[in-house]
Amino acid sequence: MYKFTNVLGTFMLDDKLNITTKKGPTKDVPEDKLLKVLTLFNDSKYFPDFYKKNVALTKKSLRDSVTQDLFIIQAVANLTELDKMCNILSKRLREWYSWYYPEFSQEVTDNQKYAELVLTAEKKSGMGADVKEIHLNEMFLLAKEITSLFALRKKHELYLEKIMKTYCPNILALAGVTVGAKLIELSRGLKRLALLPASTVQLLGAEKALFRHIKTGSKSPKYGCIFQHPLIQKAKRQDRGKAARQLADKLSLCARLDYFKGEFKGDEYRSKLEEKFL
Amino acid sequence: MYKFTNVLGTFMLDDKLNITTKKGPTKDVPEDKLLKVLTLFNDSKYFPDFYKKNVALTKKSLRDSVTQDLFIIQAVANLTELDKMCNILSKRLREWYSWYYPEFSQEVTDNQKYAELVLTAEKKSGMGADVKEIHLNEMFLLAKEITSLFALRKKHELYLEKIMKTYCPNILALAGVTVGAKLIELSRGLKRLALLPASTVQLLGAEKALFRHIKTGSKSPKYGCIFQHPLIQKAKRQDRGKAARQLADKLSLCARLDYFKGEFKGDEYRSKLEEKFL
Repeated sequence: MYKFTNVLGTFMLDDKLNITTKKGPTKDVPEDKLLKVLTLFNDSKYFPDFYKKNVALTKKSLRDSVTQDLFIIQAVANLTELDKMCNILSKRLREWYSWYYPEFSQEVTDNQKYAELVLTAEKKSGMGADVKEIHLNEMFLLAKEITSLFALRKKHELYLEKIMKTYCPNILALAGVTVGAKLIELSRGLKRLALLPASTVQLLGAEKALFRHIKTGSKSPKYGCIFQHPLIQKAKRQDRGKAARQLADKLSLCARLDYFKGEFKGDEYRSKLEEKFL
Repeated sequence: MYKFTNVLGTFMLDDKLNITTKKGPTKDVPEDKLLKVLTLFNDSKYFPDFYKKNVALTKKSLRDSVTQDLFIIQAVANLTELDKMCNILSKRLREWYSWYYPEFSQEVTDNQKYAELVLTAEKKSGMGADVKEIHLNEMFLLAKEITSLFALRKKHELYLEKIMKTYCPNILALAGVTVGAKLIELSRGLKRLALLPASTVQLLGAEKALFRHIKTGSKSPKYGCIFQHPLIQKAKRQDRGKAARQLADKLSLCARLDYFKGEFKGDEYRSKLEEKFL
C-alpha cells in the first residue's frame, strides 16, 4: 500500500495498482494516464522525481491562487485599520496639543484638518500654557505622522479604485470604492459575492444584528455595510429600508455582471436608483 | 445672600458681609483683605471687573496646572499606542507581502526589520505569485509608513529621556525610559508616585490581577509594569518576586528623591541591584 498526495488529492495505491481516494475509487482522474504513471511507482528510483514534480505543481497552484480578490481584501482591510489609527492618534494629538492651545480643538472638528493646521497655524489666544519648543516639537512630529497616515489612506483608495475599475467596474460604479471593496471583503471574493442572493448582500456586515434577531427576536437589521452608501445616507428615514433592498438587488446584479464579464450597467442602475430615492 | 466662585473655592456672602464657605466660615483666606474687597460687592457696577479678574485668575491657574508630568504621560501613552499600531500594520504587511514572497515572513521575525527589508531586499525564491507593480507599490507605501511609525516611536523615546533627565533623573537611571514613564503615567504624576508605598509601586499596572486575587483568592501578582525592567527579565525565575520587591523599594526611594529634589542616587541603586540579581 502506497499513499501519495498531490494537487489532485490524496490517493492510495495497492499492490495490484488499484487507485483509491478517500472518497472511494477515483473517477475524476483519467485512469489510463494515471496508470501509466503509477507503474513507475514500482521502482523507488523515480520517487525523487515524483517528489520534485509534486512540489512544483503545488507551488504553481499556490501561485495561481493569488487573485485580484486577495489584493482588494487586503487593501480595504488596511483602509479600515488606518481609519481606526487616524482616529486614535488624532484624539491623542487633540489632548496633547490642547495643553498648549485648548480652544483650537473646538474650532476645528475635522481630524485631518486639525493635524494639518497644528503644523501650520499660529497660536492665537492665551488660555493654554506656555509650552517649550521641545514639547511642541513632539506634537508636530505626531501631527506629521497623522497627515501621512491620512495620505496613505487616500492612496489606498485611489489604488483600490484603479484595480476595481478593471476587475469589477459595475460594482465600483454602483457602490463606490469603499463600500464595493468592503462587500468583496465580507463575501471573501467576487465569485462568492456573485453567487450570494441579494438579501444576503443587503445584510453583509450586519451579521451580529442578524443573529441577535434570529436568537432573541429583536428587530431584524435593514442594512449591513451598504448603510455607508450615499444613497441610503441621503434617503429619507422611512425610505431607507426600501432603498437598501433595491440597492442590494442591483449590487447583486452588478456582482454577477462583473464576475461573468458582462456588459457595463453600473452607472445606469445608479442613476435609476438616485432618481427614485433622492 | 450672594454666592461667588473663584479659584479659592465657593463663598457665600450674607447681608452683614460675613463670609462662609461650604465647609463653614472661612479661615484660609486673610479676612481683612477679603473684607476690603467684598464691601465692593454692595455696588453692582464692580461686577464686570470681578468677573474679568476671576476669568483671568482661572486662566492662570489652568495654565499653571500644565506640568511636566502631563507631557510625560501623553508621550508614553502615545508610545504604547504606536507600539500597538506598528504591530497591527506589520501583521497586515506580512500577510499582504506574503502573496508575493511567502518565505520572507519566516526568515525575518523582527517587525521593524521586515518593513525595512521589504523596501530594499530583492525577491529570491519562486514560491509566491507574480505580483504586478501596481500591487507591490501599495505594499511599499505601507512598509514606508511602518518604518516611519517606528521612527516616531524612537523619537518619542529620545524626547522622554531628555525631559526625564531633568525632571526625574533618579527614576530614569534606575527604571529606564519606558518603565519609568509608564510608572509616572500609571500613578498619574510624579507627586503621587512619590507618595505611594513601595508595595503599590511594585504592582502598578497589575490592578486587574490584584483585584482578581482579592476577589477570588487566585495567586497574588508579583509585579506590574516593572516586569518589563531588564533586571526582572534577566533574573532567575525563582528570584523574580524578590527582585521585583527590591526594585520597587528603590524605585519608591528614587521617586521621592526626584520629587523633593534630592541628590542623584539612581545609578548607585541600579548597580547594587544588578550585583545581587544578575
